[in-house]
Amino acid sequence: MRTRLQNLVERLGGHLIGTPDIEVSGIAPLDKATASHVTFLSNPKFRSSAAQTGAAALILSPDDNDAIGATYAGARIVTDNPYAYFARAAQLFVELNARPVLPGVHPTAFVDPTAQIAQTAVVGPHVTVEADVVIGDHARIDAGCFIGEGAKVGADTHLYANVCLHAGCEIGARGIVHSGAVIGADGFGFAKEKGAWVKIPQTGRVLIADDVEIGANTTIDRGALDDTIIEEGVKLDNQIQIGHNCHIGAHTAMAGCVGVAGSAKIGRNCTFGGAAMVLGHLTIVDNVHISSGSMVSRSILEPGQYTGFYPLARNAEWEKSAAIVRNLGTMREKIRELEKTVKSLIGKK
Amino acid sequence: MRTRLQNLVERLGGHLIGTPDIEVSGIAPLDKATASHVTFLSNPKFRSSAAQTGAAALILSPDDNDAIGATYAGARIVTDNPYAYFARAAQLFVELNARPVLPGVHPTAFVDPTAQIAQTAVVGPHVTVEADVVIGDHARIDAGCFIGEGAKVGADTHLYANVCLHAGCEIGARGIVHSGAVIGADGFGFAKEKGAWVKIPQTGRVLIADDVEIGANTTIDRGALDDTIIEEGVKLDNQIQIGHNCHIGAHTAMAGCVGVAGSAKIGRNCTFGGAAMVLGHLTIVDNVHISSGSMVSRSILEPGQYTGFYPLARNAEWEKSAAIVRNLGTMREKIRELEKTVKSLIGKK
Amino acid sequence: MRTRLQNLVERLGGHLIGTPDIEVSGIAPLDKATASHVTFLSNPKFRSSAAQTGAAALILSPDDNDAIGATYAGARIVTDNPYAYFARAAQLFVELNARPVLPGVHPTAFVDPTAQIAQTAVVGPHVTVEADVVIGDHARIDAGCFIGEGAKVGADTHLYANVCLHAGCEIGARGIVHSGAVIGADGFGFAKEKGAWVKIPQTGRVLIADDVEIGANTTIDRGALDDTIIEEGVKLDNQIQIGHNCHIGAHTAMAGCVGVAGSAKIGRNCTFGGAAMVLGHLTIVDNVHISSGSMVSRSILEPGQYTGFYPLARNAEWEKSAAIVRNLGTMREKIRELEKTVKSLIGKK
Repeated sequence: MRTRLQNLVERLGGHLIGTPDIEVSGIAPLDKATASHVTFLSNPKFRSSAAQTGAAALILSPDDNDAIGATYAGARIVTDNPYAYFARAAQLFVELNARPVLPGVHPTAFVDPTAQIAQTAVVGPHVTVEADVVIGDHARIDAGCFIGEGAKVGADTHLYANVCLHAGCEIGARGIVHSGAVIGADGFGFAKEKGAWVKIPQTGRVLIADDVEIGANTTIDRGALDDTIIEEGVKLDNQIQIGHNCHIGAHTAMAGCVGVAGSAKIGRNCTFGGAAMVLGHLTIVDNVHISSGSMVSRSILEPGQYTGFYPLARNAEWEKSAAIVRNLGTMREKIRELEKTVKSLIGKK
Repeated sequence: MRTRLQNLVERLGGHLIGTPDIEVSGIAPLDKATASHVTFLSNPKFRSSAAQTGAAALILSPDDNDAIGATYAGARIVTDNPYAYFARAAQLFVELNARPVLPGVHPTAFVDPTAQIAQTAVVGPHVTVEADVVIGDHARIDAGCFIGEGAKVGADTHLYANVCLHAGCEIGARGIVHSGAVIGADGFGFAKEKGAWVKIPQTGRVLIADDVEIGANTTIDRGALDDTIIEEGVKLDNQIQIGHNCHIGAHTAMAGCVGVAGSAKIGRNCTFGGAAMVLGHLTIVDNVHISSGSMVSRSILEPGQYTGFYPLARNAEWEKSAAIVRNLGTMREKIRELEKTVKSLIGKK
Repeated sequence: MRTRLQNLVERLGGHLIGTPDIEVSGIAPLDKATASHVTFLSNPKFRSSAAQTGAAALILSPDDNDAIGATYAGARIVTDNPYAYFARAAQLFVELNARPVLPGVHPTAFVDPTAQIAQTAVVGPHVTVEADVVIGDHARIDAGCFIGEGAKVGADTHLYANVCLHAGCEIGARGIVHSGAVIGADGFGFAKEKGAWVKIPQTGRVLIADDVEIGANTTIDRGALDDTIIEEGVKLDNQIQIGHNCHIGAHTAMAGCVGVAGSAKIGRNCTFGGAAMVLGHLTIVDNVHISSGSMVSRSILEPGQYTGFYPLARNAEWEKSAAIVRNLGTMREKIRELEKTVKSLIGKK
């Protein structure tokens, strides 16, 4: 479905320079956009590509507008944050083109009679909904999901196929949980007794606030006694593991394959690069950024970017540097010896 | 449901000091426990918190009992291993409060007529059970699980929703497998031929002994020709990958995101921190402990703790140290030059 | 089921030395093979084991044939690539012994009436097939799979239980996707606006060519605007994460737990060891081999093997080396000081 540029700015704001009646059908990158597309310029280094784009309209910042207005013939939408505007415009096009999904419970789903499912919610094929579950307005539970006893799904939240939300766990409004995610499996807790492990029952919950997105095959364990907490606006990518009793602050984002051990307390507005790992019982304050592949083995009490991974090299060079790393103590000793010898040489003069 | 302290010690042992008739309903941490809770002191450094807890009863060791008995007014349960006692007490409370699950096969499950399912077992909604499967007494197979041809599930074993146990694989008694775990997918084996990979069929099984727990979204591959073996009491956290033909010794525990490549032979009573990685075809003896984030690239033939991850630093400091790591060969060369020069200076005297 | 050696060489090629009528029932390793087995010698260092094997027949190379022919009494199949021959022979035995699977859609599956499912395809219990899906000849969709709107599955492709292939995504012929894999979840894309994340809709697809194998619980995200591309013959192990808009070249293989961030462009015939990680927007040319546990943080424009992980050590030794790594700047400074001092000492002479 197409929409007029005028409609875009009415819905999303921004200052339109150009013909309001031009109709557009979607978003495309600068170099692929045609006369039915909107495109965007969020980084001044692409100004020359922007000047040559075939798009019907260009979303850009006031600064770029001054520079580009002279040469670019299409319509322009001027906004302070072109990248966020692009995101919202893309959402709008998805909405316009979405096939409507009819509310209701699929006949192959199994729903316990005590569950409360909003009339506007959608429950797909082969879903299992246990006792006392609550599913909010316009929520969507896709095929093969499992919703355990007493769990709660907020309004407008979408669980993709084959998600597990275990007993007593809760997710707020406007959440997205991708396929294969498991929320509320047992935390990993055992006591050692005579050489064997005794299981510590995990009786806490997972409580997830509003506007949280959880990636495919990501796992978030329930707390041992207290709850695991994910605050509003947190974004977790795929294959992430969050241990029991973690607390993740609002708007923190983690890329794929990150692991967070139990009882870590992570602040707001943090970012974690892919495969970063956090040991248990640590505290990380707000606005900390961890680079990909880094192991966080101590608390971080000051904002900033932190890194710790071994630099890549050709294998032969790595073999050499790794052998020296193993013997850095010897190297330090040699330097101390040299310092002593040189000092005594100077003394002799 | 509540229980008397007397009942606790009758079931779990320990020496009760205080009123046996006090009723308690659960476990809580030292600082949150109230008059209906039992709490525990497993580490002497929390003695002062223990002395102030509001709990009805405190599980503690003989040593702590001597120190705390004077000031703490509640009941005490004295035991050599308070942490394991806490674990067993918590299990008891879970058991007392559990909603009973009726045995039987859910009408939406698909069960091949040749499968043997114990009358006391529970098979949930949308489960698939293929030919010749055997499911033991009081086993519980939750919604959406897949049990492949000829697989075996031992007595009292619990497969949470959406677990796959593939053809011919076996798990013993009292096991727990969390959602999304995949047991018995093909190992990763290929032969190279004219630039392309030819699949090597994986015809071994996964054999899992008694009392094993397997975390959410963990994968354990079937053997190529022989079997993959997990011995009794092994505990695997979430998102772990165990390659084909691995052998993991009894009571070894692995934290989340660990990866073990094919044909690794790991001993008993080992522990692996989160995201530790083990290369294939290695041997690790009993009682080896691998720190989180460490890459095990050679066999380990002596017990002890082993570590190997790059230390975290502020990004700017890491940039500096990483640049030097890349050039450690040059540094070593400079030291050698200095040693030579200094030696010749000394010789000249 | 047994087969004659003559039948093997008719199907798979190779030069048979020995009685063509010997019947064999399967493959076994050199040391376990009996008179009903075929075995193989792919590495000259096992020649002495091969000479003693009890196998009915030995697959070996011309070079090994000359060396072993004198002492080994069984039949020999001489071929240039014994390992690939073994793989194909093992495939043949699996085929001979496989229980036939009847084509058709299981009565518990839910299939949208607009889906086109080949008459020779198999759709298992509790599968969901949405509108406009196309499933090719002899494809097999096991229990609990989800096939989203408009997705395509090629001929002879096998999706194991609980796989998700999301809307619009495609996999070619002869593919294998293991349980729990999620193909086509949203990529991880957000724009920051006033401290919160705005979702960027992910409207690209995942396009997977022929002869691709994808491991259990592996995730491959759909592209943001363009598609994520997996070329023919790629082999991905378990627990791998492939970010949006990645392009993976033909016949590249990745071991378990590898992570590839968004928009990485990876060449043909590359290999990645377990838990290797690749940052986003990088280019890796053909024939690059990344060692296990290595972080690829920059583009690699020359073929070869690359490595970057911290060497494992006893914990006490690691503590020492890691402390020095943190202070390598100081060490470099000391060396510079020494160089200066020694130079001035020389000058004074």
